[in-house]
Amino acid sequence: MLYFIGLGLGDAKDITVKGLETIRKCSRVYLEAYTSILTVGKEALEEYYGRELILADRDMVEQEADGILKGADVSDVAFLVVGDPFGATTHSDLVLRAVKAGVQHRVIHNASIMNAVGCCGLQLYSFGETVSIVFWTDTWKPESFYDKIRKNRASGMHTLCLLDIKVKEQSLENLMRGRKIYEPPRYMSVKQAAQQLLEIVHNRREQHEELAITEDTICVGLARVGAENQKICTGTLTEMALADLGPPLHSLIITGDMHPLEIDMLRLFALDQATFHNLKLTDSSTYTS
Amino acid sequence: MLYFIGLGLGDAKDITVKGLETIRKCSRVYLEAYTSILTVGKEALEEYYGRELILADRDMVEQEADGILKGADVSDVAFLVVGDPFGATTHSDLVLRAVKAGVQHRVIHNASIMNAVGCCGLQLYSFGETVSIVFWTDTWKPESFYDKIRKNRASGMHTLCLLDIKVKEQSLENLMRGRKIYEPPRYMSVKQAAQQLLEIVHNRREQHEELAITEDTICVGLARVGAENQKICTGTLTEMALADLGPPLHSLIITGDMHPLEIDMLRLFALDQATFHNLKLTDSSTYTS
Repeated sequence: MLYFIGLGLGDAKDITVKGLETIRKCSRVYLEAYTSILTVGKEALEEYYGRELILADRDMVEQEADGILKGADVSDVAFLVVGDPFGATTHSDLVLRAVKAGVQHRVIHNASIMNAVGCCGLQLYSFGETVSIVFWTDTWKPESFYDKIRKNRASGMHTLCLLDIKVKEQSLENLMRGRKIYEPPRYMSVKQAAQQLLEIVHNRREQHEELAITEDTICVGLARVGAENQKICTGTLTEMALADLGPPLHSLIITGDMHPLEIDMLRLFALDQATFHNLKLTDSSTYTS
Repeated sequence: MLYFIGLGLGDAKDITVKGLETIRKCSRVYLEAYTSILTVGKEALEEYYGRELILADRDMVEQEADGILKGADVSDVAFLVVGDPFGATTHSDLVLRAVKAGVQHRVIHNASIMNAVGCCGLQLYSFGETVSIVFWTDTWKPESFYDKIRKNRASGMHTLCLLDIKVKEQSLENLMRGRKIYEPPRYMSVKQAAQQLLEIVHNRREQHEELAITEDTICVGLARVGAENQKICTGTLTEMALADLGPPLHSLIITGDMHPLEIDMLRLFALDQATFHNLKLTDSSTYTS
């Protein structure tokens, strides 16, 4: 049996009891290490689970899946994923390979950033398509996420923006020279994401259109959701582009229409209470009751 | 401290280690008992957690919140919710009352049906607004969920339909006579939801419009997600209206545009393989690559 086990979002103890018991009976345990991170590293997990973990990077999962599946038809293998195994990233490819190899699979679910963001008080019901915001470079500044957020807002929906993670990236020079030297991991902050979004807002100058994203659009910044030191901030896009939410992982929400109860919840996390006091005046499209 | 603790979706062991440790140190433990259920009852949870649970029905949470918050400023109180505390239902009202009463709160997340449905292979990214389908009566047959599903499909998005739960309902006669006698709980099945949806499809006769929901629209039925005996079925709306997925809870997904990898995953759960073989011919709007 191949077990896909979600680790949740905070630290080693966010695993479910069922997940922990399963890890302890498996012959091999892989840790998927390229789509998300916990606030603790591999060593802390190994110590708490009492098992050695095999780091599975993207190359291993995509190109050496046979190794992961080896023997899983007669013994138990665990594949650990931060969050939920079918949350922000699906592992459908590995499931399909398992089925093809005659290996049964089972999923042990956990919280994902896709549902845990509900803790800020916005209704999960009212989220539209989720978008990813990638790091811009000097020569590559994709804006497609902006159009998706705009489309969600046109339907009154909130947008969860998952922020870029770069692990095991090579510099252009090392890539060209074929040197397997990797840059330190980078995790996009709420501040960086808001700055990129703000740059598009300024370039497009759609500020006076009814459903546009403006400098005053209410956003929610979330950092380390589920951890003891999680941080949630709410405010305008401009405020968010100045906010420091500390270490990764960060996520950003761009609101759509809001219910008064949602506003009351967001107010608890306001960077500046005046923003919410003046909400009806500055950005009426986000406050329909 | 008031702890909101998600129990996950299956049985007693789907709680996180952190959640379990927290329950065991709290002075009072409430179990929210009106928005969802596990596959095991209150007694099994009490035995596993080693704590007495106080059932909190809607009336208690909405009208007697002071009782729940009592003493939570100086001791620890737990409020347990099936799934995630801010998943399908938010408990914002209780959070706001806690803040007003000077009681701190913390959330211990878990899987919610809102993210666990990803196990069928559809990308969570590509879901639009979530809808609720309520039990129709002879005189009340609301169709608003149909329009929301249609709107999601028009954007290529999938729709998660949460199915009605009736607990502590009174018959009209008992209600009128003021007798606090409650009907047995009822949980809508995938079959019932699909039948109601099919009735709307037949009435509206939009079958030839490009983005309409038709008898042949591909759906996913899910039952007891996260439990040992979970069941996932995929097929047309017509097939779903005949399918028996066993005991509750059930959820239904109406697909939008699908990626080939999503199709490959859904095929694993096909009620009839021929449905997926002929997919391009019968319902091209759902299969864009």
